[in-house]
Amino acid sequence: ALRGEHDERSLVFADLTREEYLLVQQYMLKQKDLDISTNQLTKPSQNFLFLIDLSLPKKSAALSYLEGKGQKPPREATVVVFHGTKGHVKEYVVGPLPNPTYHRDVTVERFKTELPINARTVTIGEYALLFEFMHREVFSKLEKLLKESFDVDKGGMLDMFEQMPRGVSSGDRKTWVSFFREMSGMYIHPVGFEVQVNHESVHERDWKVERVFYNGVYFDSVEQLSQKYDEGSVKKIVYKERPDYGSLKPRNRPLQIGPQLFYAEGKRFSIDKNHVLYMDWSFAFGLSSLTGMRVFDVRFKGDRIIYELSVQEAMSVYGSLTPGMMMTKFLDSSIGIGRFAHELVRGVDCPHEAAFVDTYRYIDAPAPIRFRNSICVFEHNMGQPLRRHFADFFHNSYGGMANSALVFRTITAIGNYDYMWDFIFYQSGSVEAKVHATGYISSSYLVDGNLKYGHQVADKVLGNIHTHFINFKVDLDVLGVKNVFQTKDMQYVNRSLPWMPQQHAMVPELVENQVRTEKEAALRHGTKTPRYLHIASNRTNRWGHARSYRLQVYSFAGDHLPESEAEERSMSWARYKVAVTKHKDLEQTSSSLYNQNNMWTPAVDFSKFIDDNESIDNEDLVAWVTAGFLHIPHAEDIPNTVTVGNGGGVLLRPHNYFDQDPSVQSADAVYMEPG
Amino acid sequence: ALRGEHDERSLVFADLTREEYLLVQQYMLKQKDLDISTNQLTKPSQNFLFLIDLSLPKKSAALSYLEGKGQKPPREATVVVFHGTKGHVKEYVVGPLPNPTYHRDVTVERFKTELPINARTVTIGEYALLFEFMHREVFSKLEKLLKESFDVDKGGMLDMFEQMPRGVSSGDRKTWVSFFREMSGMYIHPVGFEVQVNHESVHERDWKVERVFYNGVYFDSVEQLSQKYDEGSVKKIVYKERPDYGSLKPRNRPLQIGPQLFYAEGKRFSIDKNHVLYMDWSFAFGLSSLTGMRVFDVRFKGDRIIYELSVQEAMSVYGSLTPGMMMTKFLDSSIGIGRFAHELVRGVDCPHEAAFVDTYRYIDAPAPIRFRNSICVFEHNMGQPLRRHFADFFHNSYGGMANSALVFRTITAIGNYDYMWDFIFYQSGSVEAKVHATGYISSSYLVDGNLKYGHQVADKVLGNIHTHFINFKVDLDVLGVKNVFQTKDMQYVNRSLPWMPQQHAMVPELVENQVRTEKEAALRHGTKTPRYLHIASNRTNRWGHARSYRLQVYSFAGDHLPESEAEERSMSWARYKVAVTKHKDLEQTSSSLYNQNNMWTPAVDFSKFIDDNESIDNEDLVAWVTAGFLHIPHAEDIPNTVTVGNGGGVLLRPHNYFDQDPSVQSADAVYMEPG
Ligand SMILES: [Ca+2]
Ligand SMILES: [Ca+2]
Ligand SMILES: [Ca+2]
Ligand SMILES: [Ca+2]
Ligand SMILES: [Cu+2]
Ligand SMILES: [Cu+2]
Repeated sequence: ALRGEHDERSLVFADLTREEYLLVQQYMLKQKDLDISTNQLTKPSQNFLFLIDLSLPKKSAALSYLEGKGQKPPREATVVVFHGTKGHVKEYVVGPLPNPTYHRDVTVERFKTELPINARTVTIGEYALLFEFMHREVFSKLEKLLKESFDVDKGGMLDMFEQMPRGVSSGDRKTWVSFFREMSGMYIHPVGFEVQVNHESVHERDWKVERVFYNGVYFDSVEQLSQKYDEGSVKKIVYKERPDYGSLKPRNRPLQIGPQLFYAEGKRFSIDKNHVLYMDWSFAFGLSSLTGMRVFDVRFKGDRIIYELSVQEAMSVYGSLTPGMMMTKFLDSSIGIGRFAHELVRGVDCPHEAAFVDTYRYIDAPAPIRFRNSICVFEHNMGQPLRRHFADFFHNSYGGMANSALVFRTITAIGNYDYMWDFIFYQSGSVEAKVHATGYISSSYLVDGNLKYGHQVADKVLGNIHTHFINFKVDLDVLGVKNVFQTKDMQYVNRSLPWMPQQHAMVPELVENQVRTEKEAALRHGTKTPRYLHIASNRTNRWGHARSYRLQVYSFAGDHLPESEAEERSMSWARYKVAVTKHKDLEQTSSSLYNQNNMWTPAVDFSKFIDDNESIDNEDLVAWVTAGFLHIPHAEDIPNTVTVGNGGGVLLRPHNYFDQDPSVQSADAVYMEPG
Repeated sequence: ALRGEHDERSLVFADLTREEYLLVQQYMLKQKDLDISTNQLTKPSQNFLFLIDLSLPKKSAALSYLEGKGQKPPREATVVVFHGTKGHVKEYVVGPLPNPTYHRDVTVERFKTELPINARTVTIGEYALLFEFMHREVFSKLEKLLKESFDVDKGGMLDMFEQMPRGVSSGDRKTWVSFFREMSGMYIHPVGFEVQVNHESVHERDWKVERVFYNGVYFDSVEQLSQKYDEGSVKKIVYKERPDYGSLKPRNRPLQIGPQLFYAEGKRFSIDKNHVLYMDWSFAFGLSSLTGMRVFDVRFKGDRIIYELSVQEAMSVYGSLTPGMMMTKFLDSSIGIGRFAHELVRGVDCPHEAAFVDTYRYIDAPAPIRFRNSICVFEHNMGQPLRRHFADFFHNSYGGMANSALVFRTITAIGNYDYMWDFIFYQSGSVEAKVHATGYISSSYLVDGNLKYGHQVADKVLGNIHTHFINFKVDLDVLGVKNVFQTKDMQYVNRSLPWMPQQHAMVPELVENQVRTEKEAALRHGTKTPRYLHIASNRTNRWGHARSYRLQVYSFAGDHLPESEAEERSMSWARYKVAVTKHKDLEQTSSSLYNQNNMWTPAVDFSKFIDDNESIDNEDLVAWVTAGFLHIPHAEDIPNTVTVGNGGGVLLRPHNYFDQDPSVQSADAVYMEPG
């Protein structure tokens, strides 16, 4: 039932295998001068091999290989080392796989600057020290308070959730840690106790408590809080048991199972290695530990339409009166989006009939880890016709076709939130990239004045207002890499009626425009933008129109952080609904692993892709699409935010790309005429 | 498996039965003074019983009956008579059913004016005369031209499609009729020949050809065209066979059937008469011949949330150089939206497992007609979790729940377009109203200069630019009828950081506002409007917040017709994304049967609902929601527009209505813990 054939060339985009991770790890450990540790509890003051991930081939090399014109590009890995001994972070390219012979420091090439050590992500090794620190410097000094306020016994602990950024300027690593009850869904059980830890030094002996927040009041030290608490000059939080409202345990027993999907005649798609075939579609896929799900070389009827479609970043800005969340701006790719693509549950996360794929990752771990069933692929009955027409005027007939489409999915549970990522392949030649949010909201303790920042969702708990901004990279190649960015819209023009010229009418006209520079092609939120956005070829279809794909963005985004803020440049992609730039191998991602922890001097500032204002006329174009939604939490976010209505995405649709709707060729079409 | 019980009180909203239609028809025929005919070929100069439809009970009466406090309201029908002999249209209320004893002229009560006869819809009787007229006055006089240009033999015909409005001011009935090849999907086979017929008089003997359009040139009469054609002073259209590109016949044989939905343990919903039960939901339904699908008394866990959710109008404005389509502004409820809810095809229009409901209608027919399987209801596996969370920090566990929801659907094929209407009921307490467009685009012959109005989609065929605007009535009753209209949004406010007061940051805050008057509550397209719109009760949930439902509108609408245009008032609802008005029984619909044919003096001008600028503070509120999309046709609209990406709608979501997400009670929830 499959039209095409699998193509092993897809492997140029494949994630590293378990063996490849190990070979790279071994190679790096052999570089004695680098003095690298792979121990998961490596201290910040040592040199830690944090990440091994595929280093994508240069696009030109990959294309010429895919087109049978060039050699297979060398297979290389990116290795990230946190050099605690030297005070910097390095990115190395290691290759060629499977038997590495070289490593090359690409830090400055990629980021135009060295990376200071405090730009690094907090590792499990650093967390272990932070837990120890909290026990020693905080919990052990507050036994009475902890017992009375939080029912925490000696040696016990509260759950921790850190807020980011960790300060207000480069080099800062002064993290507000908020405490939560040890209950399921701890994120919605804040207790009103937060501690700011200064862990700027790579030596944990230098760490200290900067400030303490308890029941709405700030203290300069744990000792000050302890003393004032004992004196009775602090308004105490008195422990009260709370219902287990964060629990996801079913309250009722199953009665009847719900509607299921089934493939009466087997599945109509095929997965071989990292290559998928479905009807007229084929594509390669991968899962970056940092940015997450991505597909490459997406073809329809054999023609490449998309070189790369990938998740780039998930960002949220929070509002609160409480110190941790007041400044919170999360950039998830800095902890790793793909990193948290865990096992998908059959029948809930994906239909029972779905196919599941394992992935392997090497991040903040001593060895590669297998993530069983972390991608699912299924053909879904969308429950509606893709197209249909019923005729009873003149010609009685019915023609139609059910909308069955292929869904490619991961779900990444990054702390509190679970983002569901879908790429959907339709028989009409459209591809959709969508994200929905579920999981737990982030919350804060309800202190006086905090209701200005959200809604109360449980006893003493405020669900804090926040934005969700998601960035997708959409590298369409419409009949080759040389494309133009075209817009279309309507306008009313006053016209005299030819058959009664004294009479006028406002008649809608088509307005077309070609956008020629990157600055003009950076379409800001909150500005009127043309309704149709196209990546177009100079080649025309049978009817003389430029063959194009249209980007239709679905978004309910809130306001982007004002550019006056020092942190804004670390998320400057979120200024734009859509920005079209000239493709560069060195502009691979709109964000980076280092943007969260050094927000003020971001390793990647997307707005710089645009600053040189290059021509985008007949160039290889990349569209960076931002979707999102404003989230004002409400009681129904307890226990979990629902996916319905909480999402966004982009639909890539053929627009004069074909000479007619390609689904007319589908064998799913149905036609009837009266007897 | 069903929580609730069916309730026969839903029958106050039920469409008339076959017997009821017949009883009303018989009653009307007995009124000899009215001199009414029910013959389908009744001429415009006679009195024709055009429509019998349910007359909805007054809301207060229905509510007190539903709440067990009042009598069942009398069951009444609305009867529309086109009084050709008197030059006006009348609406009568006939009751009580089943044995009518009275009829009451409600025309002026409902429309504040009498309705001139030319406000009427063109009936099958009038069409028959128009066909005759065309044969006699046009086709028989152009035999040579018809043969040479269109391969139409003597006595043969082309297909006709009329454009509306029928002129430029009240009383006009000068219709441009465009001609199309007799092929499947005739709408995309224009021939370049259009005739303007003046049929203002109810007497067909007075009708005349006003103007003729052939191959881009205007002629004063058929005779003038014929003469110039014969002289050779007209640029001729030369007949050429065209491929059957409008055909919906499958090009390929089925290989393997696609994914199907199945109910392994039976269906989890129930339909009894016009009442549906699904999980915690119950509602009554009906299908108005004019406005289409509607539901009433929508309850969740027994509490009414929506009194009425209904389709109101589907409007399109076209642009073209050709005379018919240059002015085209379609208002579908004037021909009847529900009227065209035909049989749904199992496995294409709705999944195989769907339940189907027959409807009966009496419109432009001599007797009630049964429309088999014209509504479908099914529970769909939406292919995604409704909510889920995977925890690996601190507490390893997984909880989630598949998103199964009930879909209530009709598809109305109104001429070229097929609109798919869905009301979707989610287990999280949300209701969605959606519309998608499919079917054939409207097209025109490609004359010089016409490319400004769209794209060429076939040989000599232009797909014309147009807008789609759809209006829904959303009468939420949140804990009773007395509600307020509340908005919420975010704003960044500069705040000093309490723990380092010299440092400032822009922090997002919640902005809430209550909108108190109808004018303030009329939110225009193209203006910045608050992101969250709520219909709220004065009652609060457990956490002290106003219990509310939020309206989240999905729309890609084009520009609304400028208000300077004489036709604009007939579609003034389309000015607003959302407009909230005080409920009135006499403001039942935002449009009317008469708005299309008397656009310039519309029987219902929605903007007048707002003009009196009533208070909406603690009143019974109705939200009128407009969604739509700009349609720039492209090659892939051939043969049919696909549903994917071509739609809009509104999601009604609980927002602090409950104390937590009601789906926690669902038996579909799943929970797992390691080992
Ligand atoms: Ca550039
Ligand atoms: Ca490109
Ligand atoms: Ca009013
Ligand atoms: Ca209401
Ligand atoms: Cu959120
Ligand atoms: Cu359209």
